[in-house]
Amino acid sequence: MKPLYVIKIGGNVIDDPENLKSFLSDFSALKGDKILIHGGGKIATKLSRDLGIKAKLIEGRRVTDGETLKVVTMVYGGLINKNIIAALQNDQCNAIGLTGADGNFIRAKKRPLVEVYSEEKGAKINIDYGFVGDLDDTSVDSEALYKLLEAGFTPVFSAITHDGKGQLLNTNADTIASVLAVSMAKFYETSLIYCFEKAGVLMDVEDESSLIRSIDPPYYHELKRQGIINEGMIPKLDNAFEAIKQGLKEVCIGKSDSLSLLNEHNFGTRLTK
Amino acid sequence: MKPLYVIKIGGNVIDDPENLKSFLSDFSALKGDKILIHGGGKIATKLSRDLGIKAKLIEGRRVTDGETLKVVTMVYGGLINKNIIAALQNDQCNAIGLTGADGNFIRAKKRPLVEVYSEEKGAKINIDYGFVGDLDDTSVDSEALYKLLEAGFTPVFSAITHDGKGQLLNTNADTIASVLAVSMAKFYETSLIYCFEKAGVLMDVEDESSLIRSIDPPYYHELKRQGIINEGMIPKLDNAFEAIKQGLKEVCIGKSDSLSLLNEHNFGTRLTK
Repeated sequence: MKPLYVIKIGGNVIDDPENLKSFLSDFSALKGDKILIHGGGKIATKLSRDLGIKAKLIEGRRVTDGETLKVVTMVYGGLINKNIIAALQNDQCNAIGLTGADGNFIRAKKRPLVEVYSEEKGAKINIDYGFVGDLDDTSVDSEALYKLLEAGFTPVFSAITHDGKGQLLNTNADTIASVLAVSMAKFYETSLIYCFEKAGVLMDVEDESSLIRSIDPPYYHELKRQGIINEGMIPKLDNAFEAIKQGLKEVCIGKSDSLSLLNEHNFGTRLTK
Repeated sequence: MKPLYVIKIGGNVIDDPENLKSFLSDFSALKGDKILIHGGGKIATKLSRDLGIKAKLIEGRRVTDGETLKVVTMVYGGLINKNIIAALQNDQCNAIGLTGADGNFIRAKKRPLVEVYSEEKGAKINIDYGFVGDLDDTSVDSEALYKLLEAGFTPVFSAITHDGKGQLLNTNADTIASVLAVSMAKFYETSLIYCFEKAGVLMDVEDESSLIRSIDPPYYHELKRQGIINEGMIPKLDNAFEAIKQGLKEVCIGKSDSLSLLNEHNFGTRLTK
């Protein structure tokens, strides 16, 4: 099988125009088939503020109401996505910008009410997360995406999906990347790449040179046992190893400015079988 | 050759949610290959106003400055385009939302300075229209679009293009529809459809029942000679007959709510060879 890179970038890349530009050049230069998934960043927050739309929180959880959905559709699906496409085209990468609604590539389910205990009310309450879409292993039309890739296009997804019944939904970009990568693993030797603010998984979170090059499940177990893995990283790594179990070749976590090292298997931390 | 419908809608359809919804159902039900091109509408004007961005005019001509380009990219390329896609998917139409940058489908040239006579200054001045893209007969990658259509997708374009060097551009939706339709005529028996606020070309502009069903060039000449054609319609019709000369089967002009009559050749006014 041919290799495929599914690469996710977030706000730390998108919010810095110089960083984004050089990342997109590296992305274009990457050999092999690839898919980019981008999150939002501060532009949506700023637009919401300019329009007087307040972030809606229920019990500390962020909720996507109708006005917020409009803002993310404009900013993620329009402004950010289309400027990324124009930049990639300039770098000779034949990119095509998509949401999950386009081509019905990613169909989500609107999150049902979630029961949580409210400290304030001293009772259980139901939280309606609003227009938030959750994915499962049937969400991605991997065959249609495979055809698009084989036709020579490089898909670039913003983190917007739909329910197939006319409703756009806001979906976590990390989740899209992971579910999409696992779905593509039947056609490609698939690597999932998370670009984030650190060089990778570090022995010492304060020291970027303490990068751990490679982690397999037994080593991960040992690192956790010794308390070396940063608390905040554990859910991310648990999910990554779960995705590997479901058929990925590897999950790599590293800094966006090292992306050019990916073809030489030298990007950040590699999580493997 | 197979038939292809290239259909353009403008603000009068987009600004009315009920009208848009029923139009999109009719569009989905249309038999044969089809491409939708949509303009903007009042949402972009409203967003600009909410953000305190003033429409920039030079000598009465609308100019697309950087802030306005951001707004149209968000509204046309994001909000309107993606909601249209979600609605079409609900109607079982496998739509894919695009700008000209996506897949490099429509490459424009930034409009050069245009010399005009300024009444105010009593002299010739150069107008910079800003981020406006003009098209020529090499702008559309008809082969790539053909592949997308043959793969079963229905392309839906917002009126945003790019220059291939990383810059998005604002392009007139009528022009996109016409240039794109002419470019596709080498692969399909192509009809260009303009949805507008009237039933079609009327003998009496005040009387919707005075619709002229069909016009060929000699009849057009005669209608113009008799002063029957409304002044404002003449440039539109001149362009339409020019596009027919360049290979289109027909150009149809009519009301969006009659789209379901298109398959029976009964939609608005047909301009033919």
